[in-house]
Amino acid sequence: MRDFLNEKELNTLNHSCAHVLAQAVKHLWPHAKFWVGPVVEEGFYYDIDLGDDTITDEDLPKIEKEMKKIAKDGKRIVRHEISKEEALEEFKDDEYKVDLINNFEDGTIISTYSQGDFTDLCRGPHVDTVKQCRNFKLIKHSGAYWKGDKNNKVLQRIYGVCFPTKEELEEHLQYLEDAKARDHRKLGRELGIYMIHDLVGRGLPMWMPNGFTVRRLLSDYIMNKELALGYEHVMTPSLGNVKLYKTSGHWDHYKDDMFPAMKMDDEAYVLRPMNCPHHMVMYKQSLHSYRDLPVRIAEIANDFRFEASGALTGLERARAFTQNDSHIFCRPDQIAQEFKSVAELILDVYKDFGFEDYEFRLSLRDPDDTEKYFGNDELWEKSESQLRDVLNEMGVKYYEAKGEAAFYGPKLDVQVKSAIGHDVTLSTIQLDYQLPERFELTYVDENGDKVRPVVIHRAILGSLDRFVAFLLEETKGNFPLWLAPKQVVVLPVNNKYHEEYAKEVVAKLRKAGFRTELDNRDEKLGYRIREAQIHKIPYELVLGNSERDEGTVTYRLHGEQKQTTVSFDEFVSLLNTEVEKKTIRR
Amino acid sequence: MRDFLNEKELNTLNHSCAHVLAQAVKHLWPHAKFWVGPVVEEGFYYDIDLGDDTITDEDLPKIEKEMKKIAKDGKRIVRHEISKEEALEEFKDDEYKVDLINNFEDGTIISTYSQGDFTDLCRGPHVDTVKQCRNFKLIKHSGAYWKGDKNNKVLQRIYGVCFPTKEELEEHLQYLEDAKARDHRKLGRELGIYMIHDLVGRGLPMWMPNGFTVRRLLSDYIMNKELALGYEHVMTPSLGNVKLYKTSGHWDHYKDDMFPAMKMDDEAYVLRPMNCPHHMVMYKQSLHSYRDLPVRIAEIANDFRFEASGALTGLERARAFTQNDSHIFCRPDQIAQEFKSVAELILDVYKDFGFEDYEFRLSLRDPDDTEKYFGNDELWEKSESQLRDVLNEMGVKYYEAKGEAAFYGPKLDVQVKSAIGHDVTLSTIQLDYQLPERFELTYVDENGDKVRPVVIHRAILGSLDRFVAFLLEETKGNFPLWLAPKQVVVLPVNNKYHEEYAKEVVAKLRKAGFRTELDNRDEKLGYRIREAQIHKIPYELVLGNSERDEGTVTYRLHGEQKQTTVSFDEFVSLLNTEVEKKTIRR
Repeated sequence: MRDFLNEKELNTLNHSCAHVLAQAVKHLWPHAKFWVGPVVEEGFYYDIDLGDDTITDEDLPKIEKEMKKIAKDGKRIVRHEISKEEALEEFKDDEYKVDLINNFEDGTIISTYSQGDFTDLCRGPHVDTVKQCRNFKLIKHSGAYWKGDKNNKVLQRIYGVCFPTKEELEEHLQYLEDAKARDHRKLGRELGIYMIHDLVGRGLPMWMPNGFTVRRLLSDYIMNKELALGYEHVMTPSLGNVKLYKTSGHWDHYKDDMFPAMKMDDEAYVLRPMNCPHHMVMYKQSLHSYRDLPVRIAEIANDFRFEASGALTGLERARAFTQNDSHIFCRPDQIAQEFKSVAELILDVYKDFGFEDYEFRLSLRDPDDTEKYFGNDELWEKSESQLRDVLNEMGVKYYEAKGEAAFYGPKLDVQVKSAIGHDVTLSTIQLDYQLPERFELTYVDENGDKVRPVVIHRAILGSLDRFVAFLLEETKGNFPLWLAPKQVVVLPVNNKYHEEYAKEVVAKLRKAGFRTELDNRDEKLGYRIREAQIHKIPYELVLGNSERDEGTVTYRLHGEQKQTTVSFDEFVSLLNTEVEKKTIRR
Repeated sequence: MRDFLNEKELNTLNHSCAHVLAQAVKHLWPHAKFWVGPVVEEGFYYDIDLGDDTITDEDLPKIEKEMKKIAKDGKRIVRHEISKEEALEEFKDDEYKVDLINNFEDGTIISTYSQGDFTDLCRGPHVDTVKQCRNFKLIKHSGAYWKGDKNNKVLQRIYGVCFPTKEELEEHLQYLEDAKARDHRKLGRELGIYMIHDLVGRGLPMWMPNGFTVRRLLSDYIMNKELALGYEHVMTPSLGNVKLYKTSGHWDHYKDDMFPAMKMDDEAYVLRPMNCPHHMVMYKQSLHSYRDLPVRIAEIANDFRFEASGALTGLERARAFTQNDSHIFCRPDQIAQEFKSVAELILDVYKDFGFEDYEFRLSLRDPDDTEKYFGNDELWEKSESQLRDVLNEMGVKYYEAKGEAAFYGPKLDVQVKSAIGHDVTLSTIQLDYQLPERFELTYVDENGDKVRPVVIHRAILGSLDRFVAFLLEETKGNFPLWLAPKQVVVLPVNNKYHEEYAKEVVAKLRKAGFRTELDNRDEKLGYRIREAQIHKIPYELVLGNSERDEGTVTYRLHGEQKQTTVSFDEFVSLLNTEVEKKTIRR
């Protein structure tokens, strides 16, 4: 993640480096024609027409070499200003530039930038000389439709990045390496967490055995926490009548993000994008007294959203996902207490996962935006100050974001800083005065009158899918022992002499509740140890003569060389302690 | 469930009783006209046009009284045969009979039956005199569209049942009472198991907290059994690309039972009716060696079928349900072993639930039906005899059903006799040679050749939804302790003196892992005990002075009067034993 004081200067530098890239390509492919070369989050790219040629991996070092030469040569970058007519004349043999120039209004002054033998149409600004562009790296290449239209020709797109100093470049490349190694899509594949297959569908992850184990442990973990706090779990269907979403308002406001409706008989059904409406119907099914509130309905709920296929990203952004959701139906005088209890649950969970770098964002209405935030001023102010009081009382770090509240009430988002520097919103607590109104929910108050409850929406782990993606990237796939899909692998040194003892140890560990694998394949010990390393199994037990004869085990922690021999019972108690403490492995 | 030697005679009796019903209605509503009065599983009914009148609950006793009078009067039932023309003349004022007569071909001899002042068009046969129809009962009434077409007029339908003797009638009425008391839809509502709401959708059950607890326990129970047997659990999405179902063949053969497809971009997706295709894709994702088989992929899987709305029955027949499914990919030489292991798992599970009255049905091909059963004769014979051998070896009761095999292979269904006499198919094991072919699945055999594995489909609890419905009806809602949504309710005799101790006991029981409720409502003890009875909570703890002073608990088992006082630890150990033994409560 780049974090520079002067983002603007860095953009200028990258933009200039794009010109150096184009100049180098022109030297190597004299027939090359250039479309656009903008600055992007990753650095810069240039879209190039190479006729029938395509860029290969082998071309990148060649181009880099030529770019280095140009940079070393150190030509000045010179700006010229010309009229639209002059520009059309100058670039008349280049249909791409002509296309660009024709987009300018008549009478516009157009600028070009030249460096040595290369001139490009460009708004600028640029650095003074190409010498400044020497700390660069070409990152990747791809095909790209001209103007992004798939009916057009495919151009060659080359990505690169440039920094003022060599140190900054190296730091950035290191960051890219690290991000790549942590990418949950890579780790998810390597560790057998999930797969996606076109025949099943884009954006529809299938959880493989290791991944399902983690999911099952996570949902048991959070459900048990919730049960202890008085939540009641339900399970509601993955779809609903369109009428349900008309009642909730989602049909009007959210339809474009939903799957298409299915017409059946005289009705229409739709996969649900969220499960609030189902929970509203459940609450409404019975009579509630003020004495029975709060009612806390929770669900590990399957939801479906129609994400654009270009936006799909592994488990992070999928079309089917599972939310750790709950709706708390409470009296207005219970808001502060419930809110606090949810915030405490969040902190409790983060502690278990070792998340230390997070921030609460209190999203308030903008009182001037009366179109988005209609309704009772007093109610807004009171509930906002209640939430603020809770945060102050708890002494947590937070900031306020005016105008960021949902239209139905203020909310609190918790953002966690990821290992590679992203801010990820994991948890959310939202006050809602609207859905109780729309579903005409009531409880009977002290006076026997039917009045509206308030709804608190909340998610702790957020979506289980996104949470697993986050955990993979945080831990590089080294799950804490309690979550590791496989906790122990048992390796007999030599099957002939040690397999029997190994099987005995495996059986005893399984009986003690540990997810234990036996690797008695007919392979060398070294090979099997490496395999265990690749699969990031926390404990490797290597069992040979002395272990067998003395009834001990020799363990090695993942990623460490040190071997320790202990009695079986000591080993079990060591595992139990680690599971109970939810020790973080980094 | 009726179980008579002479079903035919019983049908004749019921048919005659339908005429007695019609005669009585004609006496009470002289303008009544009659459509048809057939014999059905429940007994008989008659569809009647009463003009603007409709039948109410209060009418049934009046009609029964008139029927009794007619039966006592004891008129003979006399058959007449007439030509179609004569029939049209005789019934010319009755548009319903004219409609029926016009359905006969010209020249047909048509029969009528008369008893005293009543004559009806009827094929017969009938009993000799209406006196034989005296042991009857009208069961219910409803509206019914003429000819079942909702554009037609609504007729009044009255259901009844008739038996040769008073004793048989009373036994049957007792059975109906019992079936009603056991109806999972009634129990499901009373015990907070599930609800269905039109706004969410027909056939889409929503699991309420008590129901979800049972489901969660059931799925944990079966998953843990499976894990111990080497199954690996996965989780795959509720929908798939239509291409997936074209590959599997479901699109051609099963489309009408599926939800409508959803068109998205250039693709179409559909809610899955079953999850076999997803598991095939998962198997195919990696290379398999003969040494790694069998691979047992299991899933607690959400499936969706488009049942006609008229066929929907609570949890028993819904549009969304969850299967306890697995696919075992094995070598041909592993079929017998895997088959046996599944059959043993079934027996093991049935023992835990106390199912004793069940039968295995071995469904074989009909070798003459070469259209349904194509393919290799030798393969069919070999696999059929393998399955037979396993059953013989296990010594279980089974029968063979020729021509009942699936087109893709022989199968074994396990039918359990329910408390009210139904045969319910809970478990199934099916051999499949087709899907491996369609998905081109392979493993590498001893010679390094890629060959096809065999797939065994199997379900143990069947659908969790249907299983819960079955359990509710079997146990009348008295779940065994390990499955009871609430296991213990704690009732302080007097809040003022005993609430503190009660809370202490509740906290300790919860800590010991028991689902415990405190009922400290400001209500009389008798009322709270009755409530606990209604909710069928297995253990009621009543805590008063002596329990508090001596640190004991006094428990009462659901449905028993006896109270027993024991120490807290004794009580916990008693609960633990009952949970561990999975004791059946009836």
